[in-house]
Amino acid sequence: MNSFRFTKMHGLGNSYIYVNQFEEQLPEEKLSEIAIQVSSVYTGIGSDGMILICPSDQAPVKMRIFNNDGSEGKNCGNGLRCVAKYAYEHKLVEETSFLIETLSGLVKAEVQVENGKVNVVTVDMGEPRLTKSELPMLDGGEEHTINETMAFGEVELTGTAVSMGNPHIVFPIADIEQAPLTTLGPVIEKDPRFPEGINVEFVETVNEQELHFRVWERGSGITQACGTGACAAAVASVLNGVSKRNQDITVHLAGGDLVINWKDNGHVMMTGPAETVCEGVYFL
Amino acid sequence: MNSFRFTKMHGLGNSYIYVNQFEEQLPEEKLSEIAIQVSSVYTGIGSDGMILICPSDQAPVKMRIFNNDGSEGKNCGNGLRCVAKYAYEHKLVEETSFLIETLSGLVKAEVQVENGKVNVVTVDMGEPRLTKSELPMLDGGEEHTINETMAFGEVELTGTAVSMGNPHIVFPIADIEQAPLTTLGPVIEKDPRFPEGINVEFVETVNEQELHFRVWERGSGITQACGTGACAAAVASVLNGVSKRNQDITVHLAGGDLVINWKDNGHVMMTGPAETVCEGVYFL
Repeated sequence: MNSFRFTKMHGLGNSYIYVNQFEEQLPEEKLSEIAIQVSSVYTGIGSDGMILICPSDQAPVKMRIFNNDGSEGKNCGNGLRCVAKYAYEHKLVEETSFLIETLSGLVKAEVQVENGKVNVVTVDMGEPRLTKSELPMLDGGEEHTINETMAFGEVELTGTAVSMGNPHIVFPIADIEQAPLTTLGPVIEKDPRFPEGINVEFVETVNEQELHFRVWERGSGITQACGTGACAAAVASVLNGVSKRNQDITVHLAGGDLVINWKDNGHVMMTGPAETVCEGVYFL
Repeated sequence: MNSFRFTKMHGLGNSYIYVNQFEEQLPEEKLSEIAIQVSSVYTGIGSDGMILICPSDQAPVKMRIFNNDGSEGKNCGNGLRCVAKYAYEHKLVEETSFLIETLSGLVKAEVQVENGKVNVVTVDMGEPRLTKSELPMLDGGEEHTINETMAFGEVELTGTAVSMGNPHIVFPIADIEQAPLTTLGPVIEKDPRFPEGINVEFVETVNEQELHFRVWERGSGITQACGTGACAAAVASVLNGVSKRNQDITVHLAGGDLVINWKDNGHVMMTGPAETVCEGVYFL
């Protein structure tokens, strides 16, 4: 194999190289290396990582996500919307509402179609997991981390921990433009309290239905948007008594807006765009 | 027009999106905007800019180069090698040695072909222009800037100015890993002494036939490699009595090696790789 077909797509500027494993057969042992290669803007295509769209025995399609450092992630909200768009437009599914298998379980997606094209997708991101053991956090246990003060070196922050199948820690901040992403992001990402690493979010509250949001993603660094992070931010906002359940919360990310709604049934619904940038053949 | 075909290629990690204007007709008034769009790794393909391969009445092909900030550049050594590879492999030329038109004049290229594929290209980068007026430098005139002490704020550096059709200032440094690219690069690039801006290079001499090299490129910032910069570095090395004319000088750039040879006939020959990353269709 010296080449394969790809589609580059992005959700709010969080871009991945998508490979259809129904047609291609990228070998398992090469996936991490290929993810690093295609992600390089210098010698590859350029992206936050690679997403495989694979056959599944539990759902019409399965999403596997590899960060630009070659590590395999569990879930990615922006990736899910693009996988849903790809699956519908490439006739891997016929219905507008279907399941997608991920490493953090089955996810329900609903596509909005206009002239045969999908531009907006709602994804049921499932229930947030809030206990320390589920995040995971080092000292584990069943308590929740809500508005808890934590020291990172000299800096003290109050954080709320939420897992959306991948771990997030959300810190409130008065001015989003001052979010210490490059200074604290890498420190907190690898803090020993988080044995599997963690995505680090800063959130400025505009009102109960509107948040500003910036993220340092585990394995990728600063990205334009993180769908699971936006969900975690909205959940943290409800847990901290700022927002309400069953209420649309618009989250302004660097790459654009997502609408998050933590339903009474416990599921977090995420609605937002998905765009195709280009498609073609990559030469290994 | 809502899509066009593209090829992404790189020379030593200095990557561009190449568009064949023999087949596409990207409108003139949109070129700068499209260059910015396709260069974005978030929402575009991801590159240091865009290069158009156009018909020419002076040569088989013409190269037009747009940086990732939308500005049009005059010349690019890595780009020339990729244009030569593209032109030969896509049968825009039949000979292995041919001319390419650029905004800084006609350039001669020679491709080395193996199994119908071009991997190495030698480009005649023409004669360096060494006078201040040709660079251009503000106070103009016919003198050369060789090993001249210049102050940039608190910092004093000794620089040698060389134009390869685009302006370069080359500073010697003891350890290339300490090259102050992000601190001094943007300052010197826009220094008023250089009315058209300037590419800023730091060079560590290993021996007369081997240099380490890093660059802050005008309009693009740090790139993995700059072919015209490598030529300027080799010329500066000869002007400062370190290297000799008619001698192969290996320049180690961040993205890999180039071999530069300043011939007795005054022309600077550059030999190095050119690689195709992917090809496909971009959706505007």
